[in-house]
Amino acid sequence: MEARGIHHVGVAVDDLDEAVRTYERLLGGRVEHRVRVEDQGVEAVSMRIGDGRVELLSPLGADTPVGRFLANRGPGMHHVAYAVDDVGAALRDLAGEGAELIDAEPRRGMFGLEVAFVHPDSVHGVLTEVVANG
Amino acid sequence: MEARGIHHVGVAVDDLDEAVRTYERLLGGRVEHRVRVEDQGVEAVSMRIGDGRVELLSPLGADTPVGRFLANRGPGMHHVAYAVDDVGAALRDLAGEGAELIDAEPRRGMFGLEVAFVHPDSVHGVLTEVVANG
Repeated sequence: MEARGIHHVGVAVDDLDEAVRTYERLLGGRVEHRVRVEDQGVEAVSMRIGDGRVELLSPLGADTPVGRFLANRGPGMHHVAYAVDDVGAALRDLAGEGAELIDAEPRRGMFGLEVAFVHPDSVHGVLTEVVANG
Repeated sequence: MEARGIHHVGVAVDDLDEAVRTYERLLGGRVEHRVRVEDQGVEAVSMRIGDGRVELLSPLGADTPVGRFLANRGPGMHHVAYAVDDVGAALRDLAGEGAELIDAEPRRGMFGLEVAFVHPDSVHGVLTEVVANG
C-alpha cells in the first residue's frame, strides 16, 4: 500500500476553544470544520495550517477514548492520519502485512470520508489512521 | 506568522532499522535521508510517505532528549514540524505571542535547514518545530 501523504495530525486537547485560538495565533491556522461525534465521544475541529491539517480532539466525557488518553498521557499528539486512495484496499494490504487493525472495515469519519485506525502496537507506538484521499 | 504546512512528523523509536522497514512495508515509505547528529544525541531517518514526511528518531544513548522521552513515554509521536518562510521571523512572532521558545535563535537541522523548537507547554502539549521551507 502506498499512502499519498499525511492527511492530518490528530491532537488531544483539554480546552477546544483555547486550542483553536492557540493554533490561529501561533501558526496562522484556520478552522475548516467543527463536529461533535456522540458515538466516538469526541468534539473535533479540523484546522488548516497552510496546506497541512491538524485535527483538535476534545472528549465529551472522561469515559471516552480521548478522555482516557488525556487522563493517562495529558494533552498532546494523538494520531497520524495518512491519505490513501481506497481505505478498504488499504485495510486488506495492512492485514496482509500482519498489522493489527482497530477497524476491520472502513467507517465514516470527519467530512463523511471513509477512515480506519491501525493499532499503535503495529506502528511503533503511533496510532495510525488511513483516510480516503478526498 | 503563517506556517506553510506540515514539514514532517517526528517519531521516537527504539529500533531505527525495524521502524524504517515498518514504514516501507505498511505505508509505502521511502528513505530520503539518514543522519547521525552527535550533539543532539540522535540518529534520524527522514522518510517520504507520498508527499508527506516522517522523521524517525533513535537515541544515541539513554541520557539524551530522545532517550529520556523513550524512557518516560515509550515509542511514539515526538513532535510536529511546520514549514515557515523565515525561521528567525517566525521566532520573533512566536515570542511576541508569548510562546516559550526552546531555541531562541535558529539552528541547523536535517538537510542543513534552519530549525527551531517551541516548548510543548505553549502548544497544548505538542512539541512544535518550525523549519525553513526548503
